[in-house]
Amino acid sequence: MASRMSEHTARAILSIASEPGDEKLGALIGEHGASQALEMIKSGQVSGAVVKRVREVMESKALEGAMTRLTNCGGRFIIPSDDEWPALLDDLDTSAPVGLWLKGTANLKVVTEKSLAVVGARASTAYGERMASEVGALAGQADVCVVSGAAYGIDAAAHRGALATDGYTIAVLACGVDVAYPAAHAGLLSRISESGLIISEAPPQGKPHKRRFLVRNRLIATLAQSTVVIEAALRSGSLSTANWANALGRDVWGIPGPVTSATSAGVHAGIRDGVMNIVTELCDVTSRFNTEPKIQNDLQDPLQIAVLKIIGTNQASTETLISKITQASDGNIDVHEIHSALAILELRGLVERTATGWRCR
Amino acid sequence: MASRMSEHTARAILSIASEPGDEKLGALIGEHGASQALEMIKSGQVSGAVVKRVREVMESKALEGAMTRLTNCGGRFIIPSDDEWPALLDDLDTSAPVGLWLKGTANLKVVTEKSLAVVGARASTAYGERMASEVGALAGQADVCVVSGAAYGIDAAAHRGALATDGYTIAVLACGVDVAYPAAHAGLLSRISESGLIISEAPPQGKPHKRRFLVRNRLIATLAQSTVVIEAALRSGSLSTANWANALGRDVWGIPGPVTSATSAGVHAGIRDGVMNIVTELCDVTSRFNTEPKIQNDLQDPLQIAVLKIIGTNQASTETLISKITQASDGNIDVHEIHSALAILELRGLVERTATGWRCR
Repeated sequence: MASRMSEHTARAILSIASEPGDEKLGALIGEHGASQALEMIKSGQVSGAVVKRVREVMESKALEGAMTRLTNCGGRFIIPSDDEWPALLDDLDTSAPVGLWLKGTANLKVVTEKSLAVVGARASTAYGERMASEVGALAGQADVCVVSGAAYGIDAAAHRGALATDGYTIAVLACGVDVAYPAAHAGLLSRISESGLIISEAPPQGKPHKRRFLVRNRLIATLAQSTVVIEAALRSGSLSTANWANALGRDVWGIPGPVTSATSAGVHAGIRDGVMNIVTELCDVTSRFNTEPKIQNDLQDPLQIAVLKIIGTNQASTETLISKITQASDGNIDVHEIHSALAILELRGLVERTATGWRCR
Repeated sequence: MASRMSEHTARAILSIASEPGDEKLGALIGEHGASQALEMIKSGQVSGAVVKRVREVMESKALEGAMTRLTNCGGRFIIPSDDEWPALLDDLDTSAPVGLWLKGTANLKVVTEKSLAVVGARASTAYGERMASEVGALAGQADVCVVSGAAYGIDAAAHRGALATDGYTIAVLACGVDVAYPAAHAGLLSRISESGLIISEAPPQGKPHKRRFLVRNRLIATLAQSTVVIEAALRSGSLSTANWANALGRDVWGIPGPVTSATSAGVHAGIRDGVMNIVTELCDVTSRFNTEPKIQNDLQDPLQIAVLKIIGTNQASTETLISKITQASDGNIDVHEIHSALAILELRGLVERTATGWRCR
């Protein structure tokens, strides 16, 4: 390569060649930029295992392969200079991701403006899964994005709770975004990427190594303002997520359970040790976002409020609505806006179509 | 009455004439002694409702009646100068009981040297009752006396857990010690008084007023080094006990439960507010008593250890045991001691009889 490589390409190569959380590499990139850092590694100005790996990647078709797979699954690769890169990740300093592999329709920066990490046991109880599902739904209703790991048990229940309320949810994987892991969650992952995001520090086809799970937990904690632990045995990986969240100054919540339940023991220990705040009501976990449920937010729109008032306890035809509102607004609100307001109110379940027009639900 | 009344009699009259927790009366007694305080009240040197009540009691047969009922139920009345009066009660200062009406075989001062108050909801769940019963049993096994209120739910389960392990337990009543309240617990109260104690600030036949329950809670908290709350709704009376215990500088523990359980909400709030420490394992609640369970204590007895060693993994006849041990001790341990050791080991479930002798369990 004659000309200097773009930061995107350099970071993609470094992401493929390194393991997530490599602080030495992070410091080098921080000082020189990724393109220059790559040159320095390639030319042997720095030492370490990364030198051999970078040369291997650059001498092979690894980058092209990863990019082809990424394109095939409809994914993208983002780096810190991209608009979509969330400032939350800056908290990781030199251990921040070199870049992120993404798949899905949501914008990572936008959805993580209000986000809640939900973590917990894979071998969860029915109680824990119910709580995870309810927390996911509460977050979804409050426009808070649920960040989790798509694992069995608590993770899956939390994602599903968010999806059930049309909420945003992010699955952070230890493997490539084109790998369904666990395989049984292929359908869940597909639903997540339709409205939310699947993200990973590992390139497409990356395998879920044990070490990657631990580093992945750190990423889950980083991508949310608050973390809630729902069932975790003593020494569970979820507790490492809680510790990361705590170290990053995030809110950390723990949902208590029966004292005899082994899957609640880690949560109770976290509460005892001051790592977590005890959840006394499920809505505690979304309280910091200071938001009312979506329905209330929507009703801050004056047009929607006006439409609901006109329909009132009776019915109203679309014609009546349009005539009354255009009149009241001196023609400033047009027919298209009124149709939009009706569509949103219908979507939210606040109004429904009748044979002759609309009624409130 | 010509001669000055004894402190016992004076305190009995004052106990009958006053309501528990009367701080003005407590201060008067503290300054002048009960006998002198009674004279001052009788002669109208002090004001208040207690003057009329004291005169009524002294002009009636109320004292004789109470004492006859006390004798008939095998009870006793103790005052601060009695050996049996526990120093724990001094923490109540002027609101300390004027005297205590007791029924039962245990010595109040001795059994409260290591005591655990167990309080909680009357409308408890199966989970809460199981926990209360296990805590009662753990305390019993650790020679820690269980102090509770003999109410339905948590109280009864805690008393029963203690009784099941031959532990001491105290029922603190809001009514007289000769009143079975609740009536359905007449049998339980009878079992408690056989090995432990029923105590009250109210005289025999005293009725359980609402105010007396609150003052009773304070007495429960005072009579134990630690208090554990097992299930309490928000604004439950058990939380008043926890607050008293906290104010008195006692350890206060809360056993968590499902976050959705209304009967655990008060406990979770107490943990959140720092009134209670979260229990992560049931044995936390007896940890401050720094005791091993009885079984371990018993095994510090060299003779019992020797007996267990001889029986080992096989069986041993009583004759063999006696012969080996008398030989090893040069005749210093006699047959009766060996039989006693075997009886205790059998009671503890460590050995069992076979057709030909004994084997370890």
